[in-house]
Amino acid sequence: MERRAGKRIACIVQYDGTLFNGWQIQNSGRTVQGDIEDALKVLSGKSVRITASGRTDAGVHARGQVFHFDLPVDIPLKRICGGLNGIMDRDASVINAYQVPDDFHARYSAVEREYRYYIHNHPCSSPFALNRAMWVKEKLDLQYLENLADFCRGENDFASFCKKRESEDINTVRTIKDISFTENNSLIEIKIVGNAFLHNMIRIMVGTFVELHNNNDDPSRVKEILDKRDRIYGGKTAPPSGLYLHRIAYDPELETFDGAF
Amino acid sequence: MERRAGKRIACIVQYDGTLFNGWQIQNSGRTVQGDIEDALKVLSGKSVRITASGRTDAGVHARGQVFHFDLPVDIPLKRICGGLNGIMDRDASVINAYQVPDDFHARYSAVEREYRYYIHNHPCSSPFALNRAMWVKEKLDLQYLENLADFCRGENDFASFCKKRESEDINTVRTIKDISFTENNSLIEIKIVGNAFLHNMIRIMVGTFVELHNNNDDPSRVKEILDKRDRIYGGKTAPPSGLYLHRIAYDPELETFDGAF
Repeated sequence: MERRAGKRIACIVQYDGTLFNGWQIQNSGRTVQGDIEDALKVLSGKSVRITASGRTDAGVHARGQVFHFDLPVDIPLKRICGGLNGIMDRDASVINAYQVPDDFHARYSAVEREYRYYIHNHPCSSPFALNRAMWVKEKLDLQYLENLADFCRGENDFASFCKKRESEDINTVRTIKDISFTENNSLIEIKIVGNAFLHNMIRIMVGTFVELHNNNDDPSRVKEILDKRDRIYGGKTAPPSGLYLHRIAYDPELETFDGAF
Repeated sequence: MERRAGKRIACIVQYDGTLFNGWQIQNSGRTVQGDIEDALKVLSGKSVRITASGRTDAGVHARGQVFHFDLPVDIPLKRICGGLNGIMDRDASVINAYQVPDDFHARYSAVEREYRYYIHNHPCSSPFALNRAMWVKEKLDLQYLENLADFCRGENDFASFCKKRESEDINTVRTIKDISFTENNSLIEIKIVGNAFLHNMIRIMVGTFVELHNNNDDPSRVKEILDKRDRIYGGKTAPPSGLYLHRIAYDPELETFDGAF
């Protein structure tokens, strides 16, 4: 009988996406996946391939990205966090590690995804929003944004809010469980919860919202755009710097397994 | 009768202190005052000296620093904000400008100062706390910190929490009107309000709090340290990256004057 090489580990990682060319390893450029795999090789002495809950694009941040891998050697969970963080640059940090069942999969086991999008809404720029939020000078009316969101909640075909090339090959129906808006000192936080999202879906949605707002369009216009099922009717893609992968939910939750902290 | 050369303007400026060698112009190194005066010269065509509510040290941030100056030429208030921000690097931003009476003084007219100090309290570092908060690995007990704060509120001689050389030349009695603690997702926010503060006073206070906590000392120990009136009994100076000059209060408030926004 073949002995298992190791055990499956899932980690939560935070990163400031500013200096990364996104999550996924590319032919060139620094990536989060690349940095973590390089650090895992130093830590474990072996090449380890990691799998994330989903990719994030260049400039997009994460507070709760999840990835899993099979560890070929025995390393205590706390040492995985401390070891990786000691090797990696400080714009990415593994904040917890869990011992998960062999059939846990960071992507396929995910039941819900939560993102946040931040808008610095002030006539003047903010040093603290630089690379961390979208800047919108015109005063945004939160009630108007709520009205737009009402048309997007629930199950919809979001082809108009998806990178064109990709929308042709896949089913573009997704379910948005919640969109809510809060404002605090010129910073608008948009919370978006769904089962899964299309490529650029949140950024195109936010860009469309801001465009409709500034054009003073009737909120029902967003419904017309969705019904077109074509990217060309959506607004500009909002900048990546405002987007944060906030949390991935699993059933059972990741926190139910043995964790480093 | 001599005609006045111009009019007095007060501005609110935000800055990320990471790449500045503090507020005050130095013989070498980039400073906030230096950047603003350089930009004012470009904007107005004349050398203009500005006066702040107080200096901030290298690495310390500001959300509501106030400075005043006498403008030798007539420039609309919105153009002052837009013009300065268009010239300066984006880690400093003038967020409002007010036309104030000739006797308004950013420092001497201030009646209250509010700072915030942030602690990232988690076993692992955070990319979002990098250069923006102090990192404390040991779980901090907020009730214990509250107990320490109880001994610091009100009028006290804070010589133990002041840079030694400076405490010898000045009256070191200050009044802390409020200290309060809130926690949100591993980020502890300490709000500190007072009439005025000694050099490094908040950073030494926070550093002392963390040290007493980690030593499991009796909270009354902070009273003993204050009574010594000597810096050598205080704890380490907490890092500048956690400190934010949050707001300067005036009577009447700055917002009662004509503003750009």
